[in-house]
Parts: sequence; structure tokens; C-alpha cells
Amino acid sequence: MINAKARAVDGPDKPFRAAEIKRRDLDSDDVLIEIKYAGICHSDIHTAHGEWGPVNYPLVPGHEIAGIITDVGANVTKYNIGDRVGVGCMVDSCGQCENCRKGEEQYCLKGNIPTYAGVDKYGEPTQGGYSTHIVVQEDFVLRIPDNIELDVAAPLLCAGITTYSPLNHWKVGNSKKVAIVGMGGLGHMAVQIADAMGAEVTVLSQTLKKKEDGIQLGADNYYATNNPETFEKLAGTFDLILNTVSAKIDLNAYLGLLTLDGTLVNVGAPAEPLSLNVMNLIGHRRSFAGSLIGGIRETQEMLDFCAKNDIAPKIEVISADQIDEAYKRVLASDVKYRFVIDTSTM
Amino acid sequence: MINAKARAVDGPDKPFRAAEIKRRDLDSDDVLIEIKYAGICHSDIHTAHGEWGPVNYPLVPGHEIAGIITDVGANVTKYNIGDRVGVGCMVDSCGQCENCRKGEEQYCLKGNIPTYAGVDKYGEPTQGGYSTHIVVQEDFVLRIPDNIELDVAAPLLCAGITTYSPLNHWKVGNSKKVAIVGMGGLGHMAVQIADAMGAEVTVLSQTLKKKEDGIQLGADNYYATNNPETFEKLAGTFDLILNTVSAKIDLNAYLGLLTLDGTLVNVGAPAEPLSLNVMNLIGHRRSFAGSLIGGIRETQEMLDFCAKNDIAPKIEVISADQIDEAYKRVLASDVKYRFVIDTSTM
Repeated sequence: MINAKARAVDGPDKPFRAAEIKRRDLDSDDVLIEIKYAGICHSDIHTAHGEWGPVNYPLVPGHEIAGIITDVGANVTKYNIGDRVGVGCMVDSCGQCENCRKGEEQYCLKGNIPTYAGVDKYGEPTQGGYSTHIVVQEDFVLRIPDNIELDVAAPLLCAGITTYSPLNHWKVGNSKKVAIVGMGGLGHMAVQIADAMGAEVTVLSQTLKKKEDGIQLGADNYYATNNPETFEKLAGTFDLILNTVSAKIDLNAYLGLLTLDGTLVNVGAPAEPLSLNVMNLIGHRRSFAGSLIGGIRETQEMLDFCAKNDIAPKIEVISADQIDEAYKRVLASDVKYRFVIDTSTM
Repeated sequence: MINAKARAVDGPDKPFRAAEIKRRDLDSDDVLIEIKYAGICHSDIHTAHGEWGPVNYPLVPGHEIAGIITDVGANVTKYNIGDRVGVGCMVDSCGQCENCRKGEEQYCLKGNIPTYAGVDKYGEPTQGGYSTHIVVQEDFVLRIPDNIELDVAAPLLCAGITTYSPLNHWKVGNSKKVAIVGMGGLGHMAVQIADAMGAEVTVLSQTLKKKEDGIQLGADNYYATNNPETFEKLAGTFDLILNTVSAKIDLNAYLGLLTLDGTLVNVGAPAEPLSLNVMNLIGHRRSFAGSLIGGIRETQEMLDFCAKNDIAPKIEVISADQIDEAYKRVLASDVKYRFVIDTSTM
């Protein structure tokens, strides 16, 4: 077993504490990664607080991981010691089902193995990236292109792929009109990616507070959703609306902004069900859809796309002692736009 | 003005009565149709009963119209006297907007002009097919193929196109797994069309009462939705589910039957909003969509497709005096599968 330093939480209302955790000895297809940076995702907070169901504490969150390979199993073929790599939201899947065979491991019919708060094939709980080391099967490791620094690479592994995948799947290029709802960790990535894909990008944010950033990142338009006129003015406008906000929204109001054959895609799920007036779909053959992260092949494609198009998250690097404070600031929307933990401070 | 006999209703709770109505003199691009048969659609009942908003009574419903052209305007080029033709749910649209120019007149941005309960471009209320004659702009008239009798042609103009259009749009050929929810006027058409398109067709009906008919019409499988095991057994099965039922359904249960990238399409809208658990979409990149009848070009394509594939509704021909009774029987699901009024009995 390999000892790793980590930051763990012992219950829904508990602060983070320093912990020693064990990582498994390398199986023949495993790599050992020395984690350099780990992003803080809103999912980490939901899970740590027990809001997404029961958790086996102590929990080490973190699924936006960037680091360096320091050891490889006997049969590893894709990576060498010294490679710059990342790990995202999943570390394994069945590999056999229809969806896995298509390269859509996130939709594994047996359920993918999440990077933390899951159970791995050895029956052990998975622990995430708020840690100095992690052992991962090479097929679930991504290569970080040379021109992306490791600190900014980390958030790409969740915020990047979660927005890239639906923008790619629903083919937003060719000046398609795309709205990004929410200008947070995911939203500020979606703006850059949709812009680089060739879309005409509109940000729909609660207020105009982050407008300057949105325009600088590539948005063509920026509207405040706390102004009801926004919904009148933009009625029937968008081919795709990507909703990055997990909180409950007025679905019918947003559906009204779609054009014929337009799609509203949620990448976050509110805890309560949403109320939907079906006539809002029928009247313009609109769709309401959902999307979950992306497959491994698509995640590599996303990293290469970001490298090629100089796309990077805006980040604030923090030390391991600042995690609790960072959580509070994320909940207050007081971050531009992603916290990344420097794991050398563990 | 042209006198026509009709059956009209004077209020939400009133019976049908014989009426004389006026049809406009032919404009240069109009045709006069002697109506032979008019289908009874569930929409007629909703509208006649005032359930879809205020109605200007007296109302003559009917948007499944089949007949013979008996006169043509000076500039009519597509039709001649004696042609066998049909009229569906709309009789006009702006012709200028983006959607009209695409041939999707049903989604006209200014609103299409419905065959009844609308207002035409002359400012007059439109009156539907429970009548001996109607005057329609030639662009909204369909040609009925020679091998389709006029009585069975009538229901194709709404029930046929309403199901053909989404099955066509979402490309159900090539052994795709398609479920048809509801085995009524629309459902029994959808089964035949999806089968002819090459899909593997499953009917999801409340009970197994109509199973024999479903199989005979082309269904490969038939399940009762009043049996909870149906939802367990068929979880994650279908590429497309076409919901022909307007009543409120348990949306989340049906979404669970979709495979990765599957779509549930509603062609009817319940009066109340539906409750949707977004996680049911995200987990398998599923979509919930709506579809409204079809464009004129697509309606002609549907008629030709039905002619080529020997597809026809099962109908019960009634006289004009039986409309009230027919409405009651439709509401009791006591019809196999569409009532068609013989307008010679007006």
C-alpha cells in the first residue's frame, strides 16, 4: 500500500482535516500519479455535505486532478514515468456494456466508478484528488498537452468536459446561436469552448456583474435574467441553451427562448423535480435534455481542443488549509471562477 | 358566398345541431372542395368543450377532411376540378417567416391558421370539416393517392401526419426500437407507420385489450402499463418513445425506458404541467421533446408513404346525427380506431 497525505471530511457539517490515506499497490495496468493540483467542484460540496445521498465518511473529494506519473504497472503501455496527466470524474467502468464499447463510459450501464464516494473493483471506497497521490487504471488517465499548465489543467477534467461534451454532441459550430446559463466554474468554460467552436455565444446570468469577463472570454452578448425583459427580447432565439446552474430554474421561461428544433440541455440536476408545460415543447418541436460529463476519448479530445485554442479556466490557487473557506465562497458565488488546491501544501 | 350544410355546436355543453354556413367566394388561389368524409379527432372534442380556451360559438369542428374539388380560382395551378384531395389541421400561414420558408408551416412564427376555431386572413372565423363544402388556398390542400379511399384518407390528415412527422424527424428506420404509448386513433397509425419505416415496434397501452389489433397492425411487442413490471422489464430499451396520450403520464417512469440518447416525444399536451426529475435525462443523455402535426410538404409525403405501404386507419363511418354519441364513445376509449362522418348525411 502507498501512503498519501489528504484532506478529509468526517461528516456533513464537519471541517476538513489533514489525513493519511492508503492507495492500493499498483496493479499491472495502474499508474501512480503524484497529484499537483486539484480543483474544487460544486459536486464536491454537495457530496461532502451529504446532499446527494448517504456518504461513507471520512471522505476525500476531488475529481479535477492534475499531476505527474511517478510509477507504472507492468503492463502499462500508454504512459511513462514523468508524463503530465489528469484524472476526472470517473476511474473505472465495466468496459463491456454497449455504452462503454462506444466510448461513453460515463453512461456505463453498470454505473461508472466515480473518482470519490464510489466503490472500486476491489470493493474499496474510492477517495479523490484532495490528496498527494492517486492510483488509477491507465485507461481512465488523460494526457495533459504540454502548453497547458497543471494548475489550469485541473478544472478541465470536470468543468471542461461537462460543458465540452454537450456543445460537441449538439454540434454548436457554424454560427449557431448558443446561450450559456450561469457564469460560474462551468459557465465560464462553456463560453470559451462554444466561442472556439464557432457559435454565436450569449451569456444568461442573474445579473450583469460578470459581463466584462464574459465578453472577454468570448461571449457576443450578455443578458441579466433578473430582468424580465430579457425573456421577451430573446424569445425564440437559441438553437442550444446549455444550463450550467444546478439550482431550480423556471424551465418554461428558458424553453421559450429556443427556436424551432432548439434544445435546452441541463448538466446539473436540481434536487427537486422541475415543472414543465409540454405545450412549450410541442409548439416549436423543442427538446429538453441532459448530459453527464463525457467519455474518456472525448475528454482527451477536449484537452487537445483547449490546448489548440488557448482555452483555460480562470483560477484562484489556494492551500489545503483554505478548503473550508473556499467552500463557503463557492456557495456565495464569490470565486472567479474555480478554486484549485496546491497539493504541495497538504 | 357559398352555402354549405354543417354540424355546429353552440357551447361547451351543447349538442351538435344542423346549420347552414357560408364559405367565402373563391379567391384566385382558392379551391372549393366538396367534403365527402370528416374524421373526429380528440382535439375536436377538447375545442368543442372549451377545454383549450375560449371559443367563438357556434363552432364547426373537423380537421381531417377528404373530398373532391368542384371549383378552382383563376390562378390555381396545382389542382383541377374532380381531383381527390384532403385538408388537415391548418389552412394558411404567413408564408414569409423562417419556418414557413422551410416548409414547416405548422410552426409559423406568426401562428398557422387552424382549420377551425381560428381567424383567416380576411378576418373571418374558420370553420372545419363537419360540413359539405370548404374553400381553401391551394397551397394547403393535399392530393390523396388513387389507392386510398376517401373515408380512410380523412384521418390521415391529422392522426397520420401527427405521428408520421416525429417518426420521420427522429429517423426511426433501421430496426430502431420504438415504443408507441397509447393504442387509440393516433397510436394505431403510429404502429403501422413505424413498422413500415423499419422500426422494431412496441405498444405500451394501459391494458392488453387491444393487443391482437396491435400485433396485426405491425407491433412486434405489446405491454400493459398498468403492470408495474413492464417498467422494470423495459428499462433502458427504446431509442424513441412516441407518446400519443394527452392525459397526464408519469413522465419519469417513461423516461426510464429510454436508452442512451433516446428521446420521448409528446404529440399531445396535458392541461397541467408535468413533473420531471432532471437526473432521468442526465444519466443517459435522454431528451424530452414535443412535435406538432407536420408541414404541408411532409403531409403529402406521408400520404404517398401510406399509399405505397398500404397503411390505413381502421375506421367506423357514422352519420352526422351520431356525432354527440361518437364524442361520448371517444371519451370512453370505445372506438376502433377513428370515427369518420359521412357528410352526405348532413
